[in-house]
Amino acid sequence: MLPSAESMTPTMHQVDVDLADRSYPILIGAGLLLAPVISDRLPAASKALIVTNDVVGPLYAHRLNALLGRRYAETIVLSLPDGETHKNWETLSRIHHVLLQQACDRDTIIFALGGGVLGDLAGFAAATYMRGISYVQVPTTLLAQVDSSVGGKTAINHPLGKNMVGAFHQPSMVLCDTATLVTLPKREVSAGLAEVIKYGPISDMIFMDWIEENIENLRAGDQAALAYAVRRSCEIKAAIVSADERESGRRAILNFGHTFGHAIEAGLGFGRWLHGEAVGCGMVMAARLSQRLGLVEAAFVERLTNLIRNAGLPTVGPNLGIGRYTELMRVDKKAASGENRFVLINGPGHAILATAPTAMVEDVLRESCRDS
Amino acid sequence: MLPSAESMTPTMHQVDVDLADRSYPILIGAGLLLAPVISDRLPAASKALIVTNDVVGPLYAHRLNALLGRRYAETIVLSLPDGETHKNWETLSRIHHVLLQQACDRDTIIFALGGGVLGDLAGFAAATYMRGISYVQVPTTLLAQVDSSVGGKTAINHPLGKNMVGAFHQPSMVLCDTATLVTLPKREVSAGLAEVIKYGPISDMIFMDWIEENIENLRAGDQAALAYAVRRSCEIKAAIVSADERESGRRAILNFGHTFGHAIEAGLGFGRWLHGEAVGCGMVMAARLSQRLGLVEAAFVERLTNLIRNAGLPTVGPNLGIGRYTELMRVDKKAASGENRFVLINGPGHAILATAPTAMVEDVLRESCRDS
Repeated sequence: MLPSAESMTPTMHQVDVDLADRSYPILIGAGLLLAPVISDRLPAASKALIVTNDVVGPLYAHRLNALLGRRYAETIVLSLPDGETHKNWETLSRIHHVLLQQACDRDTIIFALGGGVLGDLAGFAAATYMRGISYVQVPTTLLAQVDSSVGGKTAINHPLGKNMVGAFHQPSMVLCDTATLVTLPKREVSAGLAEVIKYGPISDMIFMDWIEENIENLRAGDQAALAYAVRRSCEIKAAIVSADERESGRRAILNFGHTFGHAIEAGLGFGRWLHGEAVGCGMVMAARLSQRLGLVEAAFVERLTNLIRNAGLPTVGPNLGIGRYTELMRVDKKAASGENRFVLINGPGHAILATAPTAMVEDVLRESCRDS
Repeated sequence: MLPSAESMTPTMHQVDVDLADRSYPILIGAGLLLAPVISDRLPAASKALIVTNDVVGPLYAHRLNALLGRRYAETIVLSLPDGETHKNWETLSRIHHVLLQQACDRDTIIFALGGGVLGDLAGFAAATYMRGISYVQVPTTLLAQVDSSVGGKTAINHPLGKNMVGAFHQPSMVLCDTATLVTLPKREVSAGLAEVIKYGPISDMIFMDWIEENIENLRAGDQAALAYAVRRSCEIKAAIVSADERESGRRAILNFGHTFGHAIEAGLGFGRWLHGEAVGCGMVMAARLSQRLGLVEAAFVERLTNLIRNAGLPTVGPNLGIGRYTELMRVDKKAASGENRFVLINGPGHAILATAPTAMVEDVLRESCRDS
C-alpha cells in the first residue's frame, strides 16, 4: 500500500492554524514520513529529540529518524512506556532528564511520535523545558490526528484529576501521516471516530451526513476515507482554535461529551475505557441533556446514538452511581465559578455552553446507565 | 514605623510592564498590605489561594488575608516549607493538590507571598494548573521585589539543573510592600542588593552612582532608600521585559553575572550560597571577562568589585575546580547551540551578549577563585 521512498510523491493537504506569530501548518497525507521532500518543511533547530513509546516507536521511529537526519545535525530517540497511566510527572521528568543529560538548549526541537497521551506529555515537556522549546506533533492514532495534536493543549494527569497540570503551547507543525493508521487496532480506530463524529453535531451536519455514509469504510481503514475525515476534522478544529486559542469561550464546544466522558474515565480508573469510548458515550448523555432542555428533537439524539453505536463505541454508561458521577463532574475543569457547564447541542450543527439543573443531569445519568 | 490601617494613606508608586493584553502594574510602597484601598485594585476572581512559606507566612499572611477578604468570597492559605531545596515537583504538586481538593476552577487566583523561590514555585503552579490561571506576586524579599517577581519567569529546579523546568507566565499584578523588608535578615538584604547593583553596569550608571552613595543606608534598611531602589530597579526591568518578553534577545542582559553565579550555586549545592551572593561574585567574574576582552577598563572592574564587597557580598569564588565550573556552565540554559554566551559589559552602562574563548574564561576563573 505504501509507495517506496524513491517513488514518493504523496498527495498532501495543508490546513493552517492561524494564530499570529504562533501560526502553524497541519500537513496531512498518506506516506508523509517516507517523503524526503517533507524534511525541507521542518522547523530550524540545532538538535532534535524524538519522543515516542514502546508500541509506536518500533513501527515508525526509524522512518521519522531518517527524515530528521536530512534536516538536523543530531537526532536523539527516547522511547517511553505506553499508556495513560504513564502520563504523569515521573515520565515527564524522564524527558527533561534526557534533554539535560544531552546538554540540549533552547534551540532543540521535540518530535512527539505517538497517540494523544504521548503528544500531551511530550508537548508539555516542550512547554516547560527551559520555559518552552519548539515541538512538532507527529500523531499516529486517529484520535490524535483529528483532535489532540491540533490546538496546543498539553498536559499530564494529577492523581486527583485528568489533564489538570498542563499548558497551552502551540506546536510548530503537525505532521499527520495517515498511512500510520493501518497498524492501529480496531478498538482505537473506533475511539478516534468518536472525536470525528463530534465535529458534526457541534459544527457541520454535512460532515455528519458524510460520516454516516462512510462509517464502514472508516472502520475498515479505507485510506481515502480516513484522509478526508482527518482533513475535515482538522479544518473545523483549526477554525475554532484560531478564534479562541486559550479556550476563554467558544473553543470549549470542542469538549462536547467530555464532561460526562471524563467522569466515566476517572470513575472507572484512567485507561479502562479509551478516551474516545468515554467521549462517545458522553456525547449520547450530552445529547439527551440537550433534548431534555428542549434544544434538540428525540430523532436527532437517536440518529447520533446510532452513529456512535455503528462506530463501534459504547452508548450506555458504566454504573458508577449517580452521586459519584456528579462528584467527578464537579472537579471537571470546565466548571466556571463552581457551577458545571455543559456543551449542549442547540439544534443540529450548533453547540452552546450552558448550565443545566442538577435533577435533570441526574435523570440523564439514570437513563444512560440503566442497562449496565 | 508602620501606620495603623485606619490612618493608612501610603505613598504608592506604580510601574507598568507593557505587554499588550498581558500588561500589568507593579505597585510599590511601604505598608501596602495594610492599605484597604489596595483591595479595589486587585484582579477579579471567584476564589483566592495565598501560597506562602513557614517563615514569611507567620509574619504577613494575616495582613494579606485581611486585604483579600475585602475582595474575594473565599481565601485559602497554603504554607510550604521554606528554601531552594523545596523548589521541586513534590512541592509544586502540593499546590495543585490543594487547588483540586478545594475544587478550584480557572477563575481562581493565586497570591505568591514570599521570596524568589516561593514566587517562582507558586507562579509555575499558576502557569500549569488547568493550563494556566491568574496570579499576583507579593514579594517580601529585596531580591524578589527588584527582580524575580517582575517579568513572568516561573520555574522549579530539576535534579540536573536549576530553573530547568518552568514557563513564561506573567502575573496580573505585583504588590511590593517595602515595609516587609524590615524583617529581612541582613544576609538576604545583601543578596538582594546584588540584583539592584546589576542594573547599574548593564543599563544605568546614574543609578550605580546613587547605589554607591546609598549603600550603607540600603544595608541598614532605610525605608526611603529601599523604596527608591525597588522602584528604579523595577522601572529598568519593566522596560527590558516589555521589549523582549520571552528572552529571545535583549532580555538576557538581565542575567549579568548569572552564568558564573549558577555554576557556583550548582557546584556548592543549591542553598549553600544565596542566589544573590552567587550573582554578586558572578558579576565580578563577568566584569573581569569583559575587561580581558577589552570591553571595559580595569578601574571599572575595581569599582564594581568594591561596590559588591561594600554590599556585603562575596567577590571571591569557591574553589570548585576549573573543569567543574566549565562543565556546570555548559548546561546553563543561556547556551545557544551548545556554545556558552556571556553577558558582558561593553562600556559602563551597556551590556552585550557574546561568546568568549574557553582559555580566557578559565583564566578569569583562576583569577577569581585563587584565594578560596
